[in-house]
Amino acid sequence: MTAGTDEFALINRLAWLLDPPTHGIGIGDDAATWSPTPGTVTVATTDMLVEGIHFRLDWTTPEDLGWKAMAVNLSDIAAMGARPRHALVSIALKPDQAGIVIEIYKGIAAHARASGTFVVGGDTVRTDGPLTINVTLLGEADPALILRRDGARPGDVLAITGTAGGSAAGLALLSGEPTDSDPDRSRRLLAMHHRPSPRLHAGPALASLGARCGIDISDGIASEAGHLARSSNVAIVIDVDAVPFHPDAVAMFGLERARTLGLNGGEDYELLVALPLSLVDRARDAIASETTLTVIGRVVQDQHGGLVTATSGGLPFTLGAGGYVAF
Amino acid sequence: MTAGTDEFALINRLAWLLDPPTHGIGIGDDAATWSPTPGTVTVATTDMLVEGIHFRLDWTTPEDLGWKAMAVNLSDIAAMGARPRHALVSIALKPDQAGIVIEIYKGIAAHARASGTFVVGGDTVRTDGPLTINVTLLGEADPALILRRDGARPGDVLAITGTAGGSAAGLALLSGEPTDSDPDRSRRLLAMHHRPSPRLHAGPALASLGARCGIDISDGIASEAGHLARSSNVAIVIDVDAVPFHPDAVAMFGLERARTLGLNGGEDYELLVALPLSLVDRARDAIASETTLTVIGRVVQDQHGGLVTATSGGLPFTLGAGGYVAF
Repeated sequence: MTAGTDEFALINRLAWLLDPPTHGIGIGDDAATWSPTPGTVTVATTDMLVEGIHFRLDWTTPEDLGWKAMAVNLSDIAAMGARPRHALVSIALKPDQAGIVIEIYKGIAAHARASGTFVVGGDTVRTDGPLTINVTLLGEADPALILRRDGARPGDVLAITGTAGGSAAGLALLSGEPTDSDPDRSRRLLAMHHRPSPRLHAGPALASLGARCGIDISDGIASEAGHLARSSNVAIVIDVDAVPFHPDAVAMFGLERARTLGLNGGEDYELLVALPLSLVDRARDAIASETTLTVIGRVVQDQHGGLVTATSGGLPFTLGAGGYVAF
Repeated sequence: MTAGTDEFALINRLAWLLDPPTHGIGIGDDAATWSPTPGTVTVATTDMLVEGIHFRLDWTTPEDLGWKAMAVNLSDIAAMGARPRHALVSIALKPDQAGIVIEIYKGIAAHARASGTFVVGGDTVRTDGPLTINVTLLGEADPALILRRDGARPGDVLAITGTAGGSAAGLALLSGEPTDSDPDRSRRLLAMHHRPSPRLHAGPALASLGARCGIDISDGIASEAGHLARSSNVAIVIDVDAVPFHPDAVAMFGLERARTLGLNGGEDYELLVALPLSLVDRARDAIASETTLTVIGRVVQDQHGGLVTATSGGLPFTLGAGGYVAF
């Protein structure tokens, strides 16, 4: 499950209604886990995308939308250190949208193929309302190698794969936010927004090396660091100067705006991990074929837990309110 | 997956876009199956319910709606001969519907508890459109004991659990269809519609006894028998006089209307199975604690496959167009 900031209050109110699973992780991490048989863990996540809330059909091609509906879920699986295996797809559409749904399925099929996932089932129903897509993704992991939100330990460093702010910068372009016009940079930022690449190799690779704490930054660095800090009962200090903001976002929107887009934007689908400093070099090598790994902060002890602070140039830096609010 | 009649054309157009799974059953049965480890089969299904299409909030309580969203999926798992284990629930709601969603979750939790299912994850998102619920249900089965649509053999008898037409009769009452007023009968038929009991024991029990072909009658007997006949490449002959139409439906709407409700209505969530006649007595005993089993027809050879015919009083009986069209 990827839960936007608004959803947590509601989900927390719902969890008490449900019996907790007898084993594995229940509601609250990127994905749920359970063991179908000893030695294996199934990792499961589900995400719903609603037209007008999470996407606009005049801003995205249906094929990119299908790719992204898979990406959102694949990223949750990667953030658990797991490998994707099977997907189920439900789509509610208006009677005249059959052509659009074929295109959406092409994007789903392309990302399924690229990620080694089989789409094994689904439901296609009619709606009089917005186009709605729900993907459930099931993956596999080694029980000993799960990246959890509550695995950060004081002394760990905080590291991020790839860059931050590219997707939010692409969304800013779509929204018509004024910027220096540059077709190549625009194209790259729009691709970051429309066709993100979840870190399918990095997640399991970091887990194999000994990382125990990770989350995907679907809701921006500030918000996601807060989840790690609260779940792990630690504080996190982010060195904003060290964060690899997307170079095209910096070039087109300036450093200050790029920082906001990366820290408080969303949908980058990179991984934010906490791990011992001693593992960083090997981790960087292990994922080099897919992406980079950059240390952007550290995990410290905190009596109350959950605090995220930031510095820039040695001075306190105010993190904006976290969480991604779609367009 | 439970696919309404309209959906098959679309799903069949989509399946070619997807890589077929390397093992197990893909798109097309009640649920998908795969083996996470040898000796185990995971059975997975997903169903989406849309306000205004599949339910009306002025006709159902939110708690009954939650119960039913689980029932639709639990029935697919039972129809595969499997046992439900884990569920993921996505709900799209308007900002002012949080109270309704709590009630929906109470119904989901009640049916989860009653069926031994753990709700392990979900997604709660905003919509400006109709309330939309998606449930994905995962179950377990013995690989050798799966009820498939393509398992009917000439010589088998066709049998149904419980009764037919009760849920559609409840829906007819909600629609204001004129009938003899009888509060007790009305209450029972409305309960059949709002709070169906999927055959969670009968499915695995029939599979254990040696049945190899089953489907749930979410879309009415005629339509579902058609799926079995086409998938198994056989013809099916239904003896309409033998079908156990719900007695309250017969009493309130008359035999002719009750027949239409049962044969062409839907949402009864009973099981339609094809099995050797020699197994029927033992099968009846095995499921007696949950429901009845009634032989209503037979499976015959057919050169072309897929034909479903019916007789009543020894004369041909015209089956109406199959498939359930919600209110």
